[in-house]
Amino acid sequence: MRAVDIIIDKRNGKELSRESLEFLIHGYVAGEIPDYQIAAWAMAVFFQGMSPRESAALTEVMLRSGGRMDLSGIAGPFVDKHSTGGVGDKTSLIVAPLIASLGIKDPMMSGRALGHTGGTLDKLEAIPGYRTTLEQREFREILENTGYAMTGQTQDMVPADRLLYALRDVSGTVESIPLITASILSKKAAEGADALVLDVKYGSGAFMKDPREAEKLARSLVNTGSLMGKEIIALLTDMDEPLGNMVGNFLEVEESLDCLEGRGPGDLRELSLELAARMAVLGTKARDAAEGRDLCEAALASGNPRRLFLENIRCQGGDPKQVLDMRGKYRSAFSAEIRASQDAYISRIDAGKVGHAGILLGVGRNRTEDRVSPTAGVQFHKKRGDRILLGERIMSVWAQDEASLAAALPQLEGALEYAQTPPAPRNLVLKEITREEQ
Amino acid sequence: MRAVDIIIDKRNGKELSRESLEFLIHGYVAGEIPDYQIAAWAMAVFFQGMSPRESAALTEVMLRSGGRMDLSGIAGPFVDKHSTGGVGDKTSLIVAPLIASLGIKDPMMSGRALGHTGGTLDKLEAIPGYRTTLEQREFREILENTGYAMTGQTQDMVPADRLLYALRDVSGTVESIPLITASILSKKAAEGADALVLDVKYGSGAFMKDPREAEKLARSLVNTGSLMGKEIIALLTDMDEPLGNMVGNFLEVEESLDCLEGRGPGDLRELSLELAARMAVLGTKARDAAEGRDLCEAALASGNPRRLFLENIRCQGGDPKQVLDMRGKYRSAFSAEIRASQDAYISRIDAGKVGHAGILLGVGRNRTEDRVSPTAGVQFHKKRGDRILLGERIMSVWAQDEASLAAALPQLEGALEYAQTPPAPRNLVLKEITREEQ
Repeated sequence: MRAVDIIIDKRNGKELSRESLEFLIHGYVAGEIPDYQIAAWAMAVFFQGMSPRESAALTEVMLRSGGRMDLSGIAGPFVDKHSTGGVGDKTSLIVAPLIASLGIKDPMMSGRALGHTGGTLDKLEAIPGYRTTLEQREFREILENTGYAMTGQTQDMVPADRLLYALRDVSGTVESIPLITASILSKKAAEGADALVLDVKYGSGAFMKDPREAEKLARSLVNTGSLMGKEIIALLTDMDEPLGNMVGNFLEVEESLDCLEGRGPGDLRELSLELAARMAVLGTKARDAAEGRDLCEAALASGNPRRLFLENIRCQGGDPKQVLDMRGKYRSAFSAEIRASQDAYISRIDAGKVGHAGILLGVGRNRTEDRVSPTAGVQFHKKRGDRILLGERIMSVWAQDEASLAAALPQLEGALEYAQTPPAPRNLVLKEITREEQ
Repeated sequence: MRAVDIIIDKRNGKELSRESLEFLIHGYVAGEIPDYQIAAWAMAVFFQGMSPRESAALTEVMLRSGGRMDLSGIAGPFVDKHSTGGVGDKTSLIVAPLIASLGIKDPMMSGRALGHTGGTLDKLEAIPGYRTTLEQREFREILENTGYAMTGQTQDMVPADRLLYALRDVSGTVESIPLITASILSKKAAEGADALVLDVKYGSGAFMKDPREAEKLARSLVNTGSLMGKEIIALLTDMDEPLGNMVGNFLEVEESLDCLEGRGPGDLRELSLELAARMAVLGTKARDAAEGRDLCEAALASGNPRRLFLENIRCQGGDPKQVLDMRGKYRSAFSAEIRASQDAYISRIDAGKVGHAGILLGVGRNRTEDRVSPTAGVQFHKKRGDRILLGERIMSVWAQDEASLAAALPQLEGALEYAQTPPAPRNLVLKEITREEQ
C-alpha cells in the first residue's frame, strides 16, 4: 500500500476502504506518513466527499488512534450533547446537570474557544479552582457522584484528530463535511457516550452560515453515527444572534446558574429544554420529545439540576459558595456601555460580529495558544425585536484593558441593526433530523 | 498575506494574483512555506484549474525562482522542442542537429527517463564519455560551434520546479494541466528558447492516455506560452505504439544516427520532419510547415545534420568514431527473441506495456535515484500492420541479467496483439494547435 495511490483514488472519487484509511491515519499518527500527503488527501476529500460508510470507517480509525474513556462498571445510560459552536452558547452547562437529575449520565469531553465561538472549558475555568483536566479515575468518580463530569480531551485520546485538525487549520481543509463529522464523532465516541444530541448551528455566529450546509452536516453526523451504532438526534438551530444575554466566560457561568434557577433569558431556557428533552428520549427516560420536555421542566422546577451543578463545581475543584458570592461582581475592570443611537426596534444583533468583538475583549481566542479572560464580556440588556429609545442602554461591556475595550466597542456597535418596524420572528429550532427521517 | 488564505481562495475557485503565487512559490523555495501547504494548494489547483493569465503568472514566478541560461551575444534564433514523453521517442536527437543545419540554434535542456517514458539525457549518456552537465560557458561554446547543445537542468535553474515536481509526485497532483504547463514552460523559458514546438502525445505510452486530455494540455501550453510572449506550436501525436524500432538508450542513439543518414523507420523520420518543419517556421527559415518540411528533407539528404550530430558528440565528451564502431554491437549480454505465436497481422504493440517492460530491462527507471543501463532494450523487427507467420521473429530483447530478462519477456509478449485482418491506419500527427487557431 502506498499513500500516494490512496490520495489518487480519493482524488478520482473512489470510496476508500477501511484498510486504506487505517494505513493513512495510523501511519500519520506514527509519523510514517508525512503531513504533505495528509494535506493533499484532505483537500481531495474536500472536493470528492465521502460515502457514509467511508465516513464511519474514518471515524472509527481515528477513534482507534488512541485510548478511550473506560466507563465499565458505571450504570448508564450515557448520553451527551455537542454543539458545532456559537456565541453565548452555554447550554452544555445547563443540560448536563439537568439530564443528570433525570438519572442519565453525561460524560462530557469539551473543547476550548477558537475564533469567534466560545468554549465550554474556558467558561468552566472562569470558576476559580475548577479543573478541566481529569484523570480517568477522577472522571469516573465525579460522573458517578454527580451524574456528569466535564473534561478536556487528554493527550492520549484521539491523537489523530488533534494532528489532523491542526493540519486542516493551516491547509484550507477545515470546511469538509466528512472531516468535520469524523472529528466530532471520534471524540464523542472516545468519551464513551452511547447516544448524542447534536446542536448544529447556522447563521452569522455559527461555523456554517447557511442552513442548507448545516443540514448537510447534520445528516452526515446522523448517518455516520448510525453506521457506528450510536443513536443520534440533530437539531438545526439559529445562531444569528448571541444565545442568551451574556457573552463571556464567567458571565456565562452566571447565566447558566440563572437558567438552572428558573430565571434567565427565554431563548437560552428554550434551547436548553429542547436539547435536554431529546437527551431524555435517548436516555430512555421519555417516549418522545414532548414527554422529555415535561420531565425537564419539572426537573428544573425541582432545583435538583442547580444542586448538581454546584456539586459538580465542588467535585472539580471550585467553591460553590464563592461562585454564588461572585455573581454580578466578578467583572473586568474596564467597562463601558453601548446606548441606542435612535428610537427604533433592534432588528438584528449580528452574532458573528459579537463573537469577533469577544476575541478582542479576551472572551475567545484567535490561536489555540492565546489566553482568555474569565471576567471580560458583554451583557445584552436588549435583544432582537426589542423596542428601544434614543440613549437607552443596550449593552454593558467589560474588558481587561483600555485598548481592548476601545477596539471592541465599534465592532459591537457595528453588530447592532435598527429598524422602524419590529423584525419578523425567527425560529430558534428550525428542524430535527433523526435516522428515521432519512 | 497568509498561505492558508491563498489555498482557500484557490479551493473556492478564485483566480490567484501574481503576488499571491509569488508569495507561495518563492516562500516555498526559501523554506518559509511548508510542503503541506503547497501540497494542499496543488490539490486545489488540480480540482479548480487556473486561468491562462494565472498559469502564465505561475510559470514566470517559477522561472524567477532561479537563474536562467545567458545566451546574450550569441546569434539566434533560438528554437527548441519538447515532448511530453513517450516510448522510443528519440526525435530530440534528430531534430536538434537537423534544424541547427538550417542555422537555427537549439539550446536544449532535457530530462531523464521516469516511469515508462524514456529520457533524452539517459540516451545521450549511453555514449561513452558524453557529458550532460554543462557549465554555462561550455553550453554557450557548444551551442555556437555546432548550433545545438544538450544539458540537464542545473541545480540553480527553476528550483521551484524541482521542489514542486517532487512534491506533486508523492501527493497525487501530477495530473494537473496548469501545473504541467508551468513545469514545462518554466524550464523551457530558463534555457533561453524564444520559440517552441511541443510534441504532446496521447495513447497508452503517453502521459495522457486520452487525445482530448492531451489537446487540453496542448491548448494550455500554447495559451500560456503566448501570454509569456513565446511563440508555440503544439502537435498532438499518437503514442500508442513505440516510435521507431528501437527502445533502449544506446539503441536509440543508433536509430537516430540511422535516421540522420536517411535510413531508419518511417514513423520516426516522419515525426522528426513534422516537428523540425515547424521549428524551421518558428526560426523564420520557412514561411509554412510545407516549406519547412522541404528544407528539412533537403538538409537530411545533404548529410550536414549527421555531421553536426557527430560534432556535438565530440564537443560534449564522446568519441564519434567509437560510436560509429559500436553500432550493432553495443548490447547487453543477456538476450532473447520473441517470435510470432500465430499466422496473423500485428494489430497493436502497446507502447505503455513496452515502456513498463523497459523499466524491468533497465532502459527506464521507477525512481529518480535508479540507474539505467546503456545497452539494454528492445528492437522491433515487425510493427503494427505487418503480416507475420508463426515463428517469425518480432522482437530482439537485451537485458543486464537473466532475472530482468525473464521478468520483461512476458510483459513484452503481453504488449503484442494479433488480428486476422490488417488494422485500420492511425494518424501519427492528429492535430496542430497554434495561437491563431484559438
